[in-house]
Formats: sequence, C-alpha cells, structure tokens
Amino acid sequence: MHNPQLNADGELQHLLTLEGLPAEIIGRILDTAVPFVSIAERDVKKVPLLRGKAVFNLFFENSTRTRTTFEIAAKRLSADVINLNIGVSSTAKGETLLDTIDNLVAMNADMFIVRHGQSGAPHLIAQHLSATNRSHIHVVNAGDGRHGHPTQGLLDLFTIRHYKRHFRELTVAIVGDVLHSRVARSLIHGLTTLGTPEVRVIGPQTLLPTAVAALGVHVFHDMRQGLAGCDVVVMLRLQSERMKGSLLPSAGEFFKHYGLTVEKLKLAKPDAIVMHPGPMNRGVEIDSAVADGTHSVILPQVTFGIAVRMAVMSILAGN
Amino acid sequence: MHNPQLNADGELQHLLTLEGLPAEIIGRILDTAVPFVSIAERDVKKVPLLRGKAVFNLFFENSTRTRTTFEIAAKRLSADVINLNIGVSSTAKGETLLDTIDNLVAMNADMFIVRHGQSGAPHLIAQHLSATNRSHIHVVNAGDGRHGHPTQGLLDLFTIRHYKRHFRELTVAIVGDVLHSRVARSLIHGLTTLGTPEVRVIGPQTLLPTAVAALGVHVFHDMRQGLAGCDVVVMLRLQSERMKGSLLPSAGEFFKHYGLTVEKLKLAKPDAIVMHPGPMNRGVEIDSAVADGTHSVILPQVTFGIAVRMAVMSILAGN
Amino acid sequence: MHNPQLNADGELQHLLTLEGLPAEIIGRILDTAVPFVSIAERDVKKVPLLRGKAVFNLFFENSTRTRTTFEIAAKRLSADVINLNIGVSSTAKGETLLDTIDNLVAMNADMFIVRHGQSGAPHLIAQHLSATNRSHIHVVNAGDGRHGHPTQGLLDLFTIRHYKRHFRELTVAIVGDVLHSRVARSLIHGLTTLGTPEVRVIGPQTLLPTAVAALGVHVFHDMRQGLAGCDVVVMLRLQSERMKGSLLPSAGEFFKHYGLTVEKLKLAKPDAIVMHPGPMNRGVEIDSAVADGTHSVILPQVTFGIAVRMAVMSILAGN
Repeated sequence: MHNPQLNADGELQHLLTLEGLPAEIIGRILDTAVPFVSIAERDVKKVPLLRGKAVFNLFFENSTRTRTTFEIAAKRLSADVINLNIGVSSTAKGETLLDTIDNLVAMNADMFIVRHGQSGAPHLIAQHLSATNRSHIHVVNAGDGRHGHPTQGLLDLFTIRHYKRHFRELTVAIVGDVLHSRVARSLIHGLTTLGTPEVRVIGPQTLLPTAVAALGVHVFHDMRQGLAGCDVVVMLRLQSERMKGSLLPSAGEFFKHYGLTVEKLKLAKPDAIVMHPGPMNRGVEIDSAVADGTHSVILPQVTFGIAVRMAVMSILAGN
Repeated sequence: MHNPQLNADGELQHLLTLEGLPAEIIGRILDTAVPFVSIAERDVKKVPLLRGKAVFNLFFENSTRTRTTFEIAAKRLSADVINLNIGVSSTAKGETLLDTIDNLVAMNADMFIVRHGQSGAPHLIAQHLSATNRSHIHVVNAGDGRHGHPTQGLLDLFTIRHYKRHFRELTVAIVGDVLHSRVARSLIHGLTTLGTPEVRVIGPQTLLPTAVAALGVHVFHDMRQGLAGCDVVVMLRLQSERMKGSLLPSAGEFFKHYGLTVEKLKLAKPDAIVMHPGPMNRGVEIDSAVADGTHSVILPQVTFGIAVRMAVMSILAGN
Repeated sequence: MHNPQLNADGELQHLLTLEGLPAEIIGRILDTAVPFVSIAERDVKKVPLLRGKAVFNLFFENSTRTRTTFEIAAKRLSADVINLNIGVSSTAKGETLLDTIDNLVAMNADMFIVRHGQSGAPHLIAQHLSATNRSHIHVVNAGDGRHGHPTQGLLDLFTIRHYKRHFRELTVAIVGDVLHSRVARSLIHGLTTLGTPEVRVIGPQTLLPTAVAALGVHVFHDMRQGLAGCDVVVMLRLQSERMKGSLLPSAGEFFKHYGLTVEKLKLAKPDAIVMHPGPMNRGVEIDSAVADGTHSVILPQVTFGIAVRMAVMSILAGN
C-alpha cells in the first residue's frame, strides 16, 4: 500500500504520523536537525531556506505553545508565516474544512501546519491535495485528536539520541495518561521503528489503552517495577479534565502512585534522563526536585523541538 | 465635486469605493495585477515594492479570510504588517475612532486597511487624514457595513476580464441576497463603469434593494428567466442570520428557488463562468456539483484577489 | 546594593524601572532615540540592528496599544517578533510563570517585553534569568501592576526634553489619578533623577498615594493652584472602573475639578506643553479643545514612544 506521507520517489511529502515512517527518513530528519541547533545559538538566527514561502499555521484547536514553536521555526527559515485560528473564523461561517484548505491553496500556500481536535484531519487534507493534483503543497500534523503529534515524537527521539547516542540497547518508560496521549502514541511508533528493544508504559488501568500491548510495549501498573533499570523516563502531562472526571480518584492520589519523585527515579539507571512534553503540572505527574534536577532534559527538549521542526520544514520544502 | 479617492493629479490616493472610480483607474489596477499573479507562482513569492512600509490591518469587524488576503498581499510586497483587532481594544477603552487613527499615524503608519461594521467609516478616516494634511497615508476599504467592498469588486472584475477578455458584450447576473451585499454593490458599480451592457440581479423581493433599478440593472425574481443567456453568474453568500430571520422561509426553500444547480446553469451560455465571493454555503445558494464543476472560477477568484490587492497597495504606495 | 538592571560593567541589562536608573543611562537612551525619530520618517523605516533576534511580546494583561508600539519598534529594528497573549494559554493550563519563561528561553529568545498585572513580575523574570546564568537575555517592563511603565516614562522625558531642552528649571505638574498610575510613578522617578526642581501632583485625596510627598513632589488638591506657572502639564487617564467605584463622585464632577480646560491651562506658562499617555477620555480628564489645541504634544509623544523603544531595545541588544 502506498504511504501517503511519501512521494513517488519515496521522499517525505507530508509529515502526518510516525506510524509507518521508514527508519531512514526519521534518521534523515534527526540528522538534518543537528546543525539547526547551533543556528539558534548564533547572533543572527536565520537561514534563507524558506524565503518567500508562505507557511500557514492552521490551528483548529488552540495551542499557543505549539503554534509558537512552529512560528519560530518557520521565521528562522525566513518563511512568511500566517497564523490562523480557524476555530473562530470560517468554520463558524459554515465553510467546510476542505473549502477552507482550497481557499488557502488558491492564495498560493506552500505549507500547512495543522492542529485539529479530530484524529485524521491532517491526513484528510493531504489526501485532498493529492487527489486534486496539488501535492507540491505540504502538510505537517501539529497534533490531531488522540492520534498523533509526530514533531513531538521526533523531538523526543532527537533528545534520546542526543543523550544516549543510539536506540539499540535502551529501555524507555512512558508514564501516566497514555490513553489520551498523542505524544505517547507518536513516540512509541518512533522508538519501535528505530529498534528500541524495550518500551514500557506505566499507568493505571483506566489511563492505558486496552490494546496497548499490540503496539509492542510492556505494560506496568506498578511504577516502581516499571522504572527499574530504565535509561529514559518520559512523563506525560495529566490533563486537568481527567482529574475532575471519573477516571482518577484525585491529583494527590495520582501523584502518590504515578508522580515521579527523586526517590522513585533512583530505581532507574544512574544516568537515566527524564523527559516531559510540557506544560508540566508540578506536584501532579512530576515533583519539582526531578523537573529541575540533574536528570531532567525537559528544557533541552524544547530547544531541540525548534531544530526538529526546522528540519522537517526544510526537508519538505526541498522535496 | 472632488473625488476623495483621487489626489490633485487625479491619481489614486485611497481606495474607498468603486462608485465613481474612473474606468482608466480601474483598468490600471487590473493591468498592474496581471504580473502579480505570476509572482505568486514563483519559488520566492516576494517583491520589495513596500519594503520598510508599515501597513495596518484595522479590523473593527472580525474577518479572518479578508484579513489574511491583505496580510499575504502586503507580505509579498515586503511590507511590515501589523494586525489590529480594534473591536477588543481601544474602542473598548472609550477612545474614538479618529483618536485611534491619529495614534497609529503618529506611529508612522503608511497604509490602513480598514474593515468596519458601519458604512462610511473608511471615508471618514480618509477625510480626517486629508483635513489634517496627512494625505500621504493611504486608506483601503476592506468592507464597510452594507456599503462597499471595492477590492472584492476589483477581483471580480479581474476574474471576468481574465476569462471573457472584455466587458463590451457581456451579460452578468448577480444572484441572491443583493440587499445586504456590499460585494454586489461594488461589483455593479465596477461593471457599469467598464461598460457592461447587461447587468442583472436575481432574487426574491425581500432580498433586493428597493431602488436597485436605479443602479442601472435589470431585476428578475425568476432565476430561470434571469440566467437565460448569461456569460457570467455571480452567486452571493446567504448570511445565516437572514435564514433565521423573517426575510426568508427556510434555507431549503431558498435553494429551491435561488440555489444554482447544474440544471439551472444550462440556461446560461455554454461557456458561462460561475463566481462566488466565499465562504460558500453548499446546498444553500450553490450546489456542490456547480461549485466544483467546470464552469466554476471560484478558486481562481481567490488567487486573483491576492494579486489585485498587491496591485492596489503598490499603486497607492507609488502615488 | 547591586542594581538588577545593570550588568557588571554598569551597562543596561534589563529595563525594569526608572527608580534608581542612573541619569547617564537615561541620557544615553534619550540620545540614542533621536536618530530613530528620523528613521521613522524615511521611505524604508528599517535598520538591521536586531536582525535575526527573537523578541517575545509577553502580554499577561491585554494592551493592544502598548503591544503595537513594541511590535513596530522591534520590526523597524528587523527583529523577528512573536506575540504571546499568555493570559489565554499556558497559565490557563496551570504552568507557572517561570516555567513559561524557561520554555521560551529554551526556544532561544533574545528579549522579553513583559506586561503583567502584578507589580514586580518583570523583576522576578530578570532575577530568575540571572540566577540561572542566562543574563544575556533581556527583559523590558511594558507595565507591571501599579508599579511602573518605564518606556512610557522615558518617552515622556524625551518629549519634555524635545520641547524644553533641559530639566534644570522646569515645573512639571502631573494631574489626576496618581494613585493607580504606573505612568506617573515612572515619570516622577525620571524627572527627579534628571534634576527637575519642581514636580507637582494634582488630584483629589482619594486618588493620590498617601506617601506621595516622600517621592519628592509637591501635592495640590486645587488644580488652579497646582497649574500656576507650570512648563509641563501631564494629564493622566482616568480608568473607567474608578468612575464606577467609590473613589469618585462622577465623571462630570471629576472633570469640573480636575479636567484640563483652555481656561485652566491659561494659569500655566504661555508656552506650556500638555501631555497625556493615552488613550484619552475626552471630556473626563481633558477637554477636546486642549487635546487638539496648540499646547498639546500628545501625538508627538506617540511618535517619540516608538523611537525610545527602539533605543532601549538596540542598547540592550548591544550590551
């Protein structure tokens, strides 16, 4: 079956999901991101790779943080960036998603960064562009429903590779609300593709997908058992709406069982790194002593996230 | 009487309305837009004509779509664009419209793109600038109340000229809610100025202005009669608030009488083009088979809209 | 005690407050702003001083006007500007102020323009950056609670110096709601530092801070007495929430006692200038005949405000 993310030459056409993305393409994105990390440290943080290109941030779901990272990445590539909060505009006027896209394409858009509450919306847009012979326009999934958040997955992979060099012998634990997390889903696919031998998910029964084992991961309900011997611990954000709902007794109870403390972290390897996609709930899923401690690579993740997004955009624009 | 849109040399100073705008100025705008269409197809979609100029998008009424088209046009001309949603800021603080303008002028604004719910607001601003000897600052009307939307009118004229070459022998029908449509008003003035021999409006009595015949158009209440022999069919958007109000029985009833279907379109000339200012209500004023069919030039309208706005801005900045 | 605004070489590191800012640094900012006034009058209003730098407008409190002036200033310096309305994003997600800052620093921010409802928030950010060895990142206070608004104070000083040349022999009156005004507080500190011999505050008891005399100013409750012989009259904006509250009888009553009219202005020196930070409440704190009269320098203040902000940003970026 044809991979809708790749063009006829097998090159990256859209970035929709890490599921099924070949290891060599993931590797090329991570390699391309390396020099972009140092560009961000220079006095003039700009390269002209996307000069004169129009990048549209199409956010059907509000997310200032993610929108900002893409905006910065695009501006550092010298693109013209147009931010559209679609939730409050055309769709309110009854226009369909694909009519909105067709209109923006008619304005000579070069790239869409799409955030949408419904899983599959970026795929739908990519399919539509391809079906109407406008596949020179690129789509990047910036988070769709519970489905995926591939640039977050890629920045997580970049971070792990940066600190651990390779994936061949790693044990990675992902802790918390895996059920509702597109971040977790993307990361699991990426880790599996790159050959990580041991991927674990840790959480209460109510916050793990029923078919999670089918993704090739090991399931732990006891955090201490799950953390034992880990190289990488990825803490997930607990959405406050879950805390109010029936899935959880209370935030305090959650922290007791699944919050990462200095004491629990000692069960992992001595050189383990701690990651979090942000924004953090300190005292809910992670203790401040860990978040700000020496194992934490949470802020480098953010830095690498800009570089990885620059890499994705520049690879797409070049294909 | 002096035309407030023109300077002492008869050149375009502001774009406020198509009413009374000389045919040669309209022609110059359309001619200037032609090369801008191809710029948008280039790899680097930018020209330096407005480099270092400050263009303010002053939207007293929310319209993401129109704001975006002006933002793209200004950025392709290399201007610095500042978006101001004035509804939520200074006017809420009790500042008058003209105080807001004076402040932005004091920030060395070069051009104001003004969208306002009240008819005449852009004229008021232009008059104020002229009365205070700051007429080097330009005003573009981006839609004012029910009055006008001149750049939409110009892009409609551009589209018609693109497909039909000239206006001398054309029959153009404008269908739907003419009463509330600034788009219709601007287009009628433009078509008349350019010498279109037959302009028709088609709609129910309740959605046509009482004095519409005075604009030099022919009125039809029966859509089939009105479409007969047309070269150009312009469908208007039916605002959803009209559907809820007392002016119309229902959206379904409206579609039956005034929605454009493939079958009704056959009454127009075989090479007729179908236009719509967007966003479309599919199944209300237009059938999807027409909107996406071979006669539709709705998406080229959007493309031409960017080029026409670039033309207006660059002509103004040059005068 | 170390001044947190200055680096080890005594150069400006952050602009947090005019309190305690040395006269020579204020003078250097005002001097640097002079050529920026003329840049804004050129055809291409841009200089490349901040090219490739990332300036974040962090507005925890909405203020379109102030945000716009900083956005224009940064764009004229060729910086990349990212606008963040933080009120509606991360803090809503439970992230702390300093976590938000850490994240933006990790995105390689160069400068933060901070507006916050709480006094001291910009200081807190500057301290945090310094405590974590990232003091190459600059903070500019764009208004914090009732505390200060230093760039407004600087533009007021620039305006006074522009029209009066020096501060040595001036009498300056600040009129109205001094109690709630960060503008007044910043200006008083600046005037005092630059050696202004006579600074007066005029207002009702309820709108003057109890310890105002400690700032080195003379207090007047009678406006006519206070205006007598003044060179500069600075009118403050009366927040509409004060008018509704118990501090004031009514807007009409306030205008009668503390509104600036042509007749009252005659008590000041014949060449007195009238200033206002905007937006004005015409007929509440100032009569239109004064606001638009020959003594008014209210619009030049706005123009100078852009130049002063460009000066602050370029000095910070150079240190």
